[in-house]
Amino acid sequence: MDLKEKIRNIPDFPKEGIIFRDITTLLKDAEALSTVIDELADRYRAMPIDSIAGIESRGFILGSVLAYKLKKGFIPIRKPGKLPADIISAEYSLEYGTDRIEMHVDAVNQGDQVLLIDDLLATGGTMQAACELIERAGGQVAECCFLIELADLKGKEKLQGYKTFSMLVYE
Amino acid sequence: MDLKEKIRNIPDFPKEGIIFRDITTLLKDAEALSTVIDELADRYRAMPIDSIAGIESRGFILGSVLAYKLKKGFIPIRKPGKLPADIISAEYSLEYGTDRIEMHVDAVNQGDQVLLIDDLLATGGTMQAACELIERAGGQVAECCFLIELADLKGKEKLQGYKTFSMLVYE
Repeated sequence: MDLKEKIRNIPDFPKEGIIFRDITTLLKDAEALSTVIDELADRYRAMPIDSIAGIESRGFILGSVLAYKLKKGFIPIRKPGKLPADIISAEYSLEYGTDRIEMHVDAVNQGDQVLLIDDLLATGGTMQAACELIERAGGQVAECCFLIELADLKGKEKLQGYKTFSMLVYE
Repeated sequence: MDLKEKIRNIPDFPKEGIIFRDITTLLKDAEALSTVIDELADRYRAMPIDSIAGIESRGFILGSVLAYKLKKGFIPIRKPGKLPADIISAEYSLEYGTDRIEMHVDAVNQGDQVLLIDDLLATGGTMQAACELIERAGGQVAECCFLIELADLKGKEKLQGYKTFSMLVYE
Protein backbone atom coordinates (compact mmCIF):
# COMPACT_ATOMS: atom_id res chain seq x y z
CA MET A 1 0.00 0.00 0.00
CA ASP A 2 1.29 3.47 -0.90
CA LEU A 3 0.52 5.27 2.35
CA LYS A 4 1.35 8.69 0.89
CA GLU A 5 -1.68 8.27 -1.37
CA LYS A 6 -3.83 8.02 1.75
CA ILE A 7 -2.58 11.38 3.04
CA ARG A 8 -4.39 14.47 1.80
CA ASN A 9 -2.22 17.42 0.76
CA ILE A 10 -3.74 20.79 1.59
CA PRO A 11 -1.99 23.86 0.16
CA ASP A 12 -1.71 27.07 2.19
CA PHE A 13 -2.76 25.63 5.58
CA PRO A 14 -2.33 26.86 8.25
CA LYS A 15 -0.79 29.68 6.20
CA GLU A 16 0.30 30.56 2.69
CA GLY A 17 3.15 28.55 1.24
CA ILE A 18 2.74 25.58 3.59
CA ILE A 19 1.45 22.23 2.29
CA PHE A 20 -0.37 20.60 5.19
CA ARG A 21 -0.15 16.80 5.27
CA ASP A 22 -3.59 15.77 6.49
CA ILE A 23 -3.59 12.30 8.06
CA THR A 24 -7.36 12.21 8.74
CA THR A 25 -7.89 10.58 5.33
CA LEU A 26 -5.45 7.83 6.32
CA LEU A 27 -7.01 7.36 9.76
CA LYS A 28 -10.52 6.94 8.38
CA ASP A 29 -9.29 4.19 6.04
CA ALA A 30 -9.35 1.05 8.19
CA GLU A 31 -6.88 -0.80 6.01
CA ALA A 32 -4.40 2.08 5.95
CA LEU A 33 -4.62 2.51 9.73
CA SER A 34 -3.96 -1.21 10.18
CA THR A 35 -1.02 -1.08 7.80
CA VAL A 36 0.64 1.77 9.69
CA ILE A 37 0.20 0.16 13.09
CA ASP A 38 1.22 -3.32 11.97
CA GLU A 39 4.40 -2.00 10.34
CA LEU A 40 5.30 -0.04 13.45
CA ALA A 41 4.55 -3.05 15.64
CA ASP A 42 6.87 -5.17 13.49
CA ARG A 43 9.60 -2.59 13.97
CA TYR A 44 9.27 -2.29 17.73
CA ARG A 45 8.20 -5.78 18.82
CA ALA A 46 11.72 -7.01 19.44
CA MET A 47 13.05 -3.81 21.02
CA PRO A 48 13.23 -3.57 24.82
CA ILE A 49 10.44 -1.01 25.32
CA ASP A 50 8.64 -0.53 28.64
CA SER A 51 6.05 2.04 27.62
CA ILE A 52 4.96 4.30 24.79
CA ALA A 53 4.41 8.05 25.12
CA GLY A 54 2.38 10.10 22.63
CA ILE A 55 2.35 13.87 22.26
CA GLU A 56 -1.02 15.68 22.31
CA SER A 57 -3.14 15.47 20.23
CA ARG A 58 -2.38 13.47 17.09
CA GLY A 59 0.43 11.59 18.81
CA PHE A 60 -2.25 10.16 21.11
CA ILE A 61 -3.75 8.29 18.17
CA LEU A 62 -0.77 6.34 16.88
CA GLY A 63 0.84 6.07 20.30
CA SER A 64 -2.11 4.55 22.09
CA VAL A 65 -2.91 2.07 19.32
CA LEU A 66 0.70 0.90 19.18
CA ALA A 67 0.80 0.62 22.99
CA TYR A 68 -2.27 -1.61 22.92
CA LYS A 69 -0.89 -3.68 20.07
CA LEU A 70 2.46 -4.25 21.82
CA LYS A 71 0.83 -4.71 25.25
CA LYS A 72 2.60 -1.71 26.76
CA GLY A 73 1.27 1.14 28.88
CA PHE A 74 0.50 4.50 27.24
CA ILE A 75 1.73 7.84 28.56
CA PRO A 76 0.08 11.09 27.39
CA ILE A 77 2.37 14.11 27.07
CA ARG A 78 0.02 17.06 27.18
CA LYS A 79 -0.45 20.76 26.62
CA PRO A 80 -0.18 22.92 29.76
CA GLY A 81 -2.78 22.68 32.50
CA LYS A 82 -4.42 19.42 31.42
CA LEU A 83 -2.77 16.86 33.71
CA PRO A 84 -4.20 16.78 37.24
CA ALA A 85 -1.37 15.25 39.33
CA ASP A 86 2.26 16.31 39.93
CA ILE A 87 3.86 17.25 36.62
CA ILE A 88 7.15 18.20 35.07
CA SER A 89 7.18 20.54 32.10
CA ALA A 90 9.55 21.47 29.29
CA GLU A 91 9.59 24.49 27.02
CA TYR A 92 10.16 24.62 23.28
CA SER A 93 10.44 27.39 20.72
CA LEU A 94 7.74 28.35 18.24
CA GLU A 95 8.20 30.66 15.30
CA TYR A 96 7.14 33.46 17.63
CA GLY A 97 7.59 32.82 21.35
CA THR A 98 7.57 29.54 23.24
CA ASP A 99 5.18 26.84 24.37
CA ARG A 100 5.31 24.04 26.94
CA ILE A 101 4.40 20.39 27.24
CA GLU A 102 3.80 18.51 30.46
CA MET A 103 3.96 14.95 31.77
CA HIS A 104 3.01 13.36 35.09
CA VAL A 105 6.19 12.94 37.09
CA ASP A 106 5.19 9.37 37.99
CA ALA A 107 4.43 8.36 34.39
CA VAL A 108 7.86 6.80 33.92
CA ASN A 109 9.70 4.38 36.20
CA GLN A 110 13.44 4.69 36.82
CA GLY A 111 15.34 3.20 33.88
CA ASP A 112 12.27 2.60 31.72
CA GLN A 113 12.84 2.51 27.98
CA VAL A 114 10.18 4.81 26.52
CA LEU A 115 9.22 4.95 22.85
CA LEU A 116 8.08 8.46 21.90
CA ILE A 117 5.54 8.93 19.12
CA ASP A 118 4.18 11.93 17.26
CA ASP A 119 2.50 12.20 13.90
CA LEU A 120 4.85 14.82 12.45
CA LEU A 121 8.53 15.73 12.61
CA ALA A 122 8.81 19.38 11.55
CA THR A 123 11.42 21.48 13.37
CA GLY A 124 11.73 18.87 16.13
CA GLY A 125 11.24 21.27 19.03
CA THR A 126 8.28 19.50 20.57
CA MET A 127 9.93 16.09 20.41
CA GLN A 128 13.15 17.47 21.87
CA ALA A 129 11.14 18.78 24.83
CA ALA A 130 9.43 15.38 25.15
CA CYS A 131 12.82 13.64 25.29
CA GLU A 132 13.84 16.04 28.05
CA LEU A 133 10.72 15.10 30.05
CA ILE A 134 11.37 11.37 29.74
CA GLU A 135 14.96 11.77 30.91
CA ARG A 136 14.14 14.13 33.78
CA ALA A 137 11.56 11.56 34.98
CA GLY A 138 14.31 8.92 35.09
CA GLY A 139 13.57 7.11 31.82
CA GLN A 140 15.49 6.59 28.62
CA VAL A 141 14.33 7.42 25.12
CA ALA A 142 14.19 4.16 23.16
CA GLU A 143 13.46 5.98 19.90
CA CYS A 144 11.55 8.98 18.52
CA CYS A 145 8.99 7.71 16.01
CA PHE A 146 7.06 9.79 13.47
CA LEU A 147 4.49 8.95 10.85
CA ILE A 148 5.62 11.88 8.70
CA GLU A 149 8.91 13.78 8.45
CA LEU A 150 9.22 17.12 6.65
CA ALA A 151 12.89 16.76 5.80
CA ASP A 152 13.41 20.39 4.71
CA LEU A 153 12.83 21.59 8.25
CA LYS A 154 15.81 19.60 9.52
CA GLY A 155 14.13 18.37 12.69
CA LYS A 156 16.51 15.42 12.88
CA GLU A 157 19.39 17.80 13.59
CA LYS A 158 17.64 18.91 16.76
CA LEU A 159 17.21 15.28 17.79
CA GLN A 160 20.88 14.30 17.39
CA GLY A 161 21.78 11.93 20.18
CA TYR A 162 18.45 10.11 19.88
CA LYS A 163 17.42 7.34 17.55
CA THR A 164 14.69 8.50 15.19
CA PHE A 165 12.42 6.75 12.74
CA SER A 166 10.07 8.33 10.20
CA MET A 167 7.67 6.17 8.25
CA LEU A 168 7.01 8.67 5.43
CA VAL A 169 9.48 11.36 4.43
CA TYR A 170 8.52 14.46 2.41
CA GLU A 171 11.34 16.52 0.89
CA MET B 1 -9.98 -6.59 37.24
CA ASP B 2 -11.49 -3.70 39.21
CA LEU B 3 -10.88 -0.90 36.74
CA LYS B 4 -11.93 1.80 39.22
CA GLU B 5 -8.84 0.86 41.25
CA LYS B 6 -6.74 1.81 38.25
CA ILE B 7 -8.21 5.30 38.10
CA ARG B 8 -6.64 7.95 40.31
CA ASN B 9 -8.99 10.23 42.23
CA ILE B 10 -7.70 13.79 42.58
CA PRO B 11 -9.64 16.09 44.88
CA ASP B 12 -10.16 19.75 44.02
CA PHE B 13 -9.06 19.57 40.36
CA PRO B 14 -9.62 21.57 38.24
CA LYS B 15 -11.33 23.46 41.07
CA GLU B 16 -12.42 23.09 44.67
CA GLY B 17 -15.10 20.49 45.35
CA ILE B 18 -14.52 18.49 42.16
CA ILE B 19 -12.99 15.00 42.32
CA PHE B 20 -11.11 14.54 39.06
CA ARG B 21 -11.05 10.97 37.75
CA ASP B 22 -7.56 10.63 36.28
CA ILE B 23 -7.34 7.87 33.68
CA THR B 24 -3.59 8.27 33.05
CA THR B 25 -2.91 5.67 35.75
CA LEU B 26 -5.15 3.22 33.88
CA LEU B 27 -3.60 4.00 30.50
CA LYS B 28 -0.05 3.40 31.71
CA ASP B 29 -1.07 -0.04 33.02
CA ALA B 30 -0.82 -2.29 29.95
CA GLU B 31 -3.11 -4.93 31.40
CA ALA B 32 -5.79 -2.40 32.36
CA LEU B 33 -5.65 -0.75 28.93
CA SER B 34 -6.05 -4.16 27.27
CA THR B 35 -8.97 -5.02 29.54
CA VAL B 36 -10.84 -1.83 28.66
CA ILE B 37 -10.34 -2.21 24.93
CA ASP B 38 -11.09 -5.92 24.84
CA GLU B 39 -14.33 -5.45 26.79
CA LEU B 40 -15.41 -2.64 24.46
CA ALA B 41 -14.48 -4.71 21.42
CA ASP B 42 -16.63 -7.57 22.75
CA ARG B 43 -19.54 -5.17 23.11
CA TYR B 44 -19.26 -3.64 19.64
CA ARG B 45 -17.96 -6.50 17.49
CA ALA B 46 -21.42 -7.71 16.47
CA MET B 47 -22.97 -4.26 15.99
CA PRO B 48 -23.20 -2.81 12.47
CA ILE B 49 -20.60 -0.05 12.87
CA ASP B 50 -18.88 1.62 9.91
CA SER B 51 -16.47 3.89 11.73
CA ILE B 52 -15.50 5.17 15.16
CA ALA B 53 -15.20 8.85 16.08
CA GLY B 54 -13.30 10.12 19.11
CA ILE B 55 -13.55 13.55 20.69
CA GLU B 56 -10.30 15.52 21.27
CA SER B 57 -8.16 14.79 23.20
CA ARG B 58 -8.74 11.83 25.51
CA GLY B 59 -11.43 10.42 23.23
CA PHE B 60 -8.68 10.00 20.63
CA ILE B 61 -7.03 7.38 22.82
CA LEU B 62 -9.84 4.90 23.37
CA GLY B 63 -11.48 5.67 20.03
CA SER B 64 -8.45 5.03 17.87
CA VAL B 65 -7.45 1.85 19.70
CA LEU B 66 -10.95 0.44 19.41
CA ALA B 67 -11.08 1.40 15.71
CA TYR B 68 -7.86 -0.50 15.09
CA LYS B 69 -9.07 -3.49 17.11
CA LEU B 70 -12.38 -3.68 15.21
CA LYS B 71 -10.76 -2.89 11.85
CA LYS B 72 -12.74 0.32 11.37
CA GLY B 73 -11.66 3.78 10.31
CA PHE B 74 -11.09 6.47 12.95
CA ILE B 75 -12.57 9.98 12.79
CA PRO B 76 -11.13 12.76 14.97
CA ILE B 77 -13.64 15.35 16.23
CA ARG B 78 -11.51 18.33 17.11
CA LYS B 79 -11.28 21.65 18.85
CA PRO B 80 -11.73 24.70 16.58
CA GLY B 81 -9.15 25.56 13.94
CA LYS B 82 -7.28 22.25 13.91
CA LEU B 83 -8.78 20.46 10.91
CA PRO B 84 -7.39 21.63 7.56
CA ALA B 85 -10.12 20.68 5.05
CA ASP B 86 -13.82 21.63 4.79
CA ILE B 87 -15.45 21.31 8.19
CA ILE B 88 -18.79 21.47 9.94
CA SER B 89 -18.93 22.71 13.51
CA ALA B 90 -21.33 22.51 16.43
CA GLU B 91 -21.56 24.62 19.55
CA TYR B 92 -22.09 23.48 23.13
CA SER B 93 -22.53 25.23 26.45
CA LEU B 94 -19.89 25.51 29.13
CA GLU B 95 -20.45 26.69 32.67
CA TYR B 96 -19.65 30.17 31.39
CA GLY B 97 -20.09 30.77 27.67
CA THR B 98 -19.86 28.30 24.80
CA ASP B 99 -17.30 26.27 22.89
CA ARG B 100 -17.26 24.46 19.54
CA ILE B 101 -16.09 21.17 18.08
CA GLU B 102 -15.40 20.50 14.43
CA MET B 103 -15.32 17.56 12.03
CA HIS B 104 -14.32 17.21 8.39
CA VAL B 105 -17.48 17.24 6.32
CA ASP B 106 -16.23 14.24 4.32
CA ALA B 107 -15.36 12.18 7.41
CA VAL B 108 -18.68 10.31 7.31
CA ASN B 109 -20.37 8.63 4.34
CA GLN B 110 -24.14 8.87 3.82
CA GLY B 111 -25.89 6.38 6.07
CA ASP B 112 -22.75 5.31 7.97
CA GLN B 113 -23.27 3.99 11.46
CA VAL B 114 -20.76 5.86 13.63
CA LEU B 115 -19.77 4.86 17.15
CA LEU B 116 -18.88 7.95 19.21
CA ILE B 117 -16.33 7.66 22.02
CA ASP B 118 -15.18 9.97 24.76
CA ASP B 119 -13.47 9.27 28.05
CA LEU B 120 -15.98 11.09 30.26
CA LEU B 121 -19.73 11.75 30.36
CA ALA B 122 -20.25 14.81 32.55
CA THR B 123 -23.03 17.21 31.46
CA GLY B 124 -23.19 15.62 28.01
CA GLY B 125 -22.89 18.86 26.06
CA THR B 126 -19.82 17.90 24.06
CA MET B 127 -21.24 14.51 23.08
CA GLN B 128 -24.56 16.07 22.10
CA ALA B 129 -22.67 18.41 19.76
CA ALA B 130 -20.74 15.43 18.37
CA CYS B 131 -24.01 13.59 17.62
CA GLU B 132 -25.22 16.69 15.78
CA LEU B 133 -22.06 16.67 13.64
CA ILE B 134 -22.45 13.00 12.70
CA GLU B 135 -26.07 13.51 11.68
CA ARG B 136 -25.45 16.72 9.75
CA ALA B 137 -22.71 14.89 7.81
CA GLY B 138 -25.26 12.23 6.82
CA GLY B 139 -24.36 9.52 9.31
CA GLN B 140 -26.21 7.86 12.15
CA VAL B 141 -25.06 7.57 15.75
CA ALA B 142 -24.67 3.86 16.55
CA GLU B 143 -24.03 4.58 20.24
CA CYS B 144 -22.33 7.09 22.53
CA CYS B 145 -19.66 5.25 24.52
CA PHE B 146 -17.84 6.52 27.62
CA LEU B 147 -15.20 5.06 29.85
CA ILE B 148 -16.52 7.05 32.84
CA GLU B 149 -19.91 8.53 33.65
CA LEU B 150 -20.44 11.06 36.43
CA ALA B 151 -24.08 10.18 37.08
CA ASP B 152 -24.84 13.20 39.28
CA LEU B 153 -24.39 15.54 36.34
CA LYS B 154 -27.23 13.85 34.45
CA GLY B 155 -25.50 13.87 31.07
CA LYS B 156 -27.67 10.97 29.92
CA GLU B 157 -30.72 13.24 29.97
CA LYS B 158 -29.09 15.46 27.37
CA LEU B 159 -28.42 12.38 25.21
CA GLN B 160 -32.01 11.08 25.21
CA GLY B 161 -32.77 9.69 21.81
CA TYR B 162 -29.30 8.13 21.53
CA LYS B 163 -28.06 4.82 22.84
CA THR B 164 -25.38 5.34 25.49
CA PHE B 165 -22.97 3.04 27.26
CA SER B 166 -20.71 3.87 30.21
CA MET B 167 -18.14 1.36 31.37
CA LEU B 168 -17.64 2.85 34.85
CA VAL B 169 -20.28 4.89 36.66
CA TYR B 170 -19.51 7.21 39.58
CA GLU B 171 -22.47 8.45 41.66
